[in-house]
Amino acid sequence: MSERAIGVFDSGVGGLTVFKELLRLLPGEQLIYLGDTARVPYGTKSPRTVLRYAMEASAFLVEQGVKMLVVACNTASSVALPALEERFSLPVIGVIEPGARRALQLTRNRRVGVIGTEGTVKSGAYARAIHAFDAGVEVFAAPCPLFVPLAEEGWANHVVAGLAAAEYLAPLQEHGVDTLVLGCTHYPLLKATLHQVLGDGVELVDSAEETARVVAALLEARQLSRRGQPGAPRFFVTDVPTRFERVGGAFLGAALQGVEQVELD
Amino acid sequence: MSERAIGVFDSGVGGLTVFKELLRLLPGEQLIYLGDTARVPYGTKSPRTVLRYAMEASAFLVEQGVKMLVVACNTASSVALPALEERFSLPVIGVIEPGARRALQLTRNRRVGVIGTEGTVKSGAYARAIHAFDAGVEVFAAPCPLFVPLAEEGWANHVVAGLAAAEYLAPLQEHGVDTLVLGCTHYPLLKATLHQVLGDGVELVDSAEETARVVAALLEARQLSRRGQPGAPRFFVTDVPTRFERVGGAFLGAALQGVEQVELD
Repeated sequence: MSERAIGVFDSGVGGLTVFKELLRLLPGEQLIYLGDTARVPYGTKSPRTVLRYAMEASAFLVEQGVKMLVVACNTASSVALPALEERFSLPVIGVIEPGARRALQLTRNRRVGVIGTEGTVKSGAYARAIHAFDAGVEVFAAPCPLFVPLAEEGWANHVVAGLAAAEYLAPLQEHGVDTLVLGCTHYPLLKATLHQVLGDGVELVDSAEETARVVAALLEARQLSRRGQPGAPRFFVTDVPTRFERVGGAFLGAALQGVEQVELD
Repeated sequence: MSERAIGVFDSGVGGLTVFKELLRLLPGEQLIYLGDTARVPYGTKSPRTVLRYAMEASAFLVEQGVKMLVVACNTASSVALPALEERFSLPVIGVIEPGARRALQLTRNRRVGVIGTEGTVKSGAYARAIHAFDAGVEVFAAPCPLFVPLAEEGWANHVVAGLAAAEYLAPLQEHGVDTLVLGCTHYPLLKATLHQVLGDGVELVDSAEETARVVAALLEARQLSRRGQPGAPRFFVTDVPTRFERVGGAFLGAALQGVEQVELD
């Protein structure tokens, strides 16, 4: 069982920030990535539709014989995790709980901000996850719909990104948050811009890093860690790979090659 | 036959700018709209995937018994029109040719700019359509990936939209275009911002208006015009209607109600 791969999926390129951390932290593991690029984005779609897509993506990875599922998408994690855990008899890790835990470790004034897609913010998943550990922490969430296209456009450090960030974050700043959860796998690319707008007084929580740590800990705890040299990571997408390969490099921090196209629906 | 409805489809809310012009110009016609909101956007997806989605959307409208198909999406028009015309034995009108014709009427220096999604620009469909009429006109195209999210976010007149427009349009201005085709059904919302960036010397071509005129002329020519008072327009979407109803109002210029959800795939 421990020899098997870890399956990771997202609606598109965003989850590659999580995949990058997994590769860094777990060099002995065989990793498979699936980006549902024919139906990207999930963030503006309804919970029911996102749930259906997440089920299909997970079923594909399970067919590949993975030992664990990583839902590297905040929107899918926020609406599909319980259903995926029920349907598939293997560990399922989302990005919400790791980020929520880290925010609780970092906050001093117990005022936490969360930014994400419309779907993630509407779901209230971060507030639920944070309150499950500590009901006394105040959570303020703001959707930032332009951050995904800005990151994919390569404009993460553009003046336009700074202006959009200033406008989106103003309400959170007024609430005096001292910790901000980047509740979308695209947002780590905007870290520099967010830091510039918020200043040193606000800690940024990168769900990608936290999720990789949780995956590593779980592999260890369940004695599922793989020994030895793995093969190259495999990448699957549901649309032709051209755009994924071009845009995804910035998210993975390395060139993307040999991406295969598959059909889910 | 003339009593039948006209079927209009787009990936989401963008085609409502075309639908609005059809309602205005053809008050006697029964109109049906389909937005493929579970799979929006089409503009970043491959021609093969967009063609498949356009086929499924058209098949749904044909099942509703329409007399004519209007592809109110530049991306779908740029890759799917010949295949749709071959498959369905009824008139199929796209948004590319009407915009191309109008640009040719307006340009004086024979230098035409085209802005659109990545998919539309890559397809080269506008240059082909313009050159089919007049091979001597120079066409310069620029993808503007942020315009769709800006329009949907209600930021069409925001300073961020102005900055993005200035950056996207600079190469077209350097080429000295005197006419700019808004090659995406979302872009009419950005007219004021585009006019501000480009000044009075550049004419904007709104494909929505031109397409409605072509539809009206074709109905007349084929004696397919409907007489009498039609029922209320019908709206179908493939995801739950909440977001479509909220965001679409600005595109239609009227409140959206009674939107029905259907499945295509």
